[in-house]
Amino acid sequence: MTELKNDRFLRALLRQPIDMTPVWMMRQAGRYLPEYRATREKAGSFMDLCMNPELACEVTLQPLDRFPLDAAILFSDILTVPDAMGLGLYFSEGEGPKFERPVRTAAAIGALGVPDPEQELRYVMDAVRTIRRELGGRVPLIGFSGSPWTLATYMVEGGTTKTFARCKGMMFDQPAVMHALLGKLADAVTSYLNAQVAAGAQVLMIFDTWGGTLTPSDYKAFSLAYMQRIVEGLTREADGRKVPVILFTKGGGQWLELMADTGCDALGLDWTLDIGDARNRVGNRVALQGNLDPCTLYASPDAIRCAVAEILKSYGPGTGHVFNLGHGIHPAIPPEHAGAMIDAVHELSRPYHN
Amino acid sequence: MTELKNDRFLRALLRQPIDMTPVWMMRQAGRYLPEYRATREKAGSFMDLCMNPELACEVTLQPLDRFPLDAAILFSDILTVPDAMGLGLYFSEGEGPKFERPVRTAAAIGALGVPDPEQELRYVMDAVRTIRRELGGRVPLIGFSGSPWTLATYMVEGGTTKTFARCKGMMFDQPAVMHALLGKLADAVTSYLNAQVAAGAQVLMIFDTWGGTLTPSDYKAFSLAYMQRIVEGLTREADGRKVPVILFTKGGGQWLELMADTGCDALGLDWTLDIGDARNRVGNRVALQGNLDPCTLYASPDAIRCAVAEILKSYGPGTGHVFNLGHGIHPAIPPEHAGAMIDAVHELSRPYHN
Repeated sequence: MTELKNDRFLRALLRQPIDMTPVWMMRQAGRYLPEYRATREKAGSFMDLCMNPELACEVTLQPLDRFPLDAAILFSDILTVPDAMGLGLYFSEGEGPKFERPVRTAAAIGALGVPDPEQELRYVMDAVRTIRRELGGRVPLIGFSGSPWTLATYMVEGGTTKTFARCKGMMFDQPAVMHALLGKLADAVTSYLNAQVAAGAQVLMIFDTWGGTLTPSDYKAFSLAYMQRIVEGLTREADGRKVPVILFTKGGGQWLELMADTGCDALGLDWTLDIGDARNRVGNRVALQGNLDPCTLYASPDAIRCAVAEILKSYGPGTGHVFNLGHGIHPAIPPEHAGAMIDAVHELSRPYHN
Repeated sequence: MTELKNDRFLRALLRQPIDMTPVWMMRQAGRYLPEYRATREKAGSFMDLCMNPELACEVTLQPLDRFPLDAAILFSDILTVPDAMGLGLYFSEGEGPKFERPVRTAAAIGALGVPDPEQELRYVMDAVRTIRRELGGRVPLIGFSGSPWTLATYMVEGGTTKTFARCKGMMFDQPAVMHALLGKLADAVTSYLNAQVAAGAQVLMIFDTWGGTLTPSDYKAFSLAYMQRIVEGLTREADGRKVPVILFTKGGGQWLELMADTGCDALGLDWTLDIGDARNRVGNRVALQGNLDPCTLYASPDAIRCAVAEILKSYGPGTGHVFNLGHGIHPAIPPEHAGAMIDAVHELSRPYHN
């Protein structure tokens, strides 16, 4: 394997000394970039792009060619795992992801198999291998998955939901059935993430997009418990280096202490909490990633710079901070505003590291 | 004025002893009730219903005729104030509220007037008077408004938004312009709520639906500060009784202490925090209203009863708790499930009050 030329991101996640705060953006390979839109056009549908390792690699690298980012993230979708379980993922224009065959009964859940990542999800592993090779050690590569609870919401509802009627109905009325689904998903995600590490991923991130819609006790039982099971089952070393694991529950700011207890290395933060307060709460148990309001990037570069300075100041001196947005970058953001944020992070963070 | 026959709700809000925990539901007059759908059909559009005091009264009373609820809430919309400011509110099917004339410049904001509630919002005051008369003292009547920040998001965006691009863009780039808008709205809301009290409202609630989309420092500056200004300007007594004020920021669980400091009497809680923890945090400064996950009502009456019991147990003995959902009841909920919740609250809460 090629030597890693920029390991600032890995070091920050493990709370080792760094020269400046590393930065990347959720959805950094995305619609706000004209070059992404061009490749997407060439590929066909969104899933065609995910399933083509060469083109997935191309869009993964595009933001790195434009900005001095400190990490690359595999271009893929969180719903590849349920698709590989046979649910039939498709995207209908303007309505988001949908499944042809949602699972809503104990029998349907019992019949689900745990996919072999090198078989049914081979296209993802090929993308990881291609990207890792093409990166040539510029920055580390992040692999990822959705959390079991997040995947389950789509699998039971059959797509995006505003009400969570079916999945929460199952959770309240048939908790054993929901636990059976979550258990199977935890196994599938563990195997999927370990295969990504074997294929070349150097950091892992679990996206719990919908954990924040739960009550505290339901969050613990139906989301956090399964993320913990995954963390415990992950390969934590590759190429002689530790593979850090980042957990991110959107809207989960109230549960940071519990999340830190899972044994993960870092927590993703949305923008509804102050990162300095979050640091005080978790102490030196985990690193923190975040947490600029993605809407800040609609503002002028000067306003963006001020907002970056505030977050760096709030986190304070020392390592353990990876700068990011609190959620994915919006499609209408001018790319140069993203650039202003990235430059501000590197420039303004130097005094906090000695 | 007729004597109030059931003042359990008022007493709980003021943390005075009660016999059992009072309960009402956000959007209790709404689409889940067949009788509501029939009146709505008769009225025409949603705004036609809001603007017809007799029919607004009819739907306000419907849930009280069906369930032993402890409070009535004025049937209206949070966007009546910007509509009265001249923005031209309309509802397009499936897309939610919209404004014909959004305000996006300092000039447009400068030109906005503060409506006279007994003129431009006369239909709301007439509804309050009609409902109060028809209630005949059965339970107290809640008046309400949206928070300045929440109203501003619709006024600047021109309708519902997922990205908050324009309003947050204004907030970051032209904070003085946003503050001018919020100041005007705080004046308008104060006058609107005071007029509701003069017309017969016995409790006031401010809905800050979108405050939870802000960072902590932006929340303080752009949402909380203006709610505080309103609270300070409100009439706090009517008919020789205190008029309690409830603040509700959806997703604002992290800021309860700050909200309690505004001088309000109670805080609405969504379901993402444990009500016992919330009680520990605010002590005896304010009462708490909430916080069942509205999705619980999709489950069976038995499961609903268990979930009610958990919240009552978490709050613990003593007054200061008003049971409610953590957000509005969903349109697809079977009415008998709402009934199961209401009965469970009354029945299971008795042992906590002596």
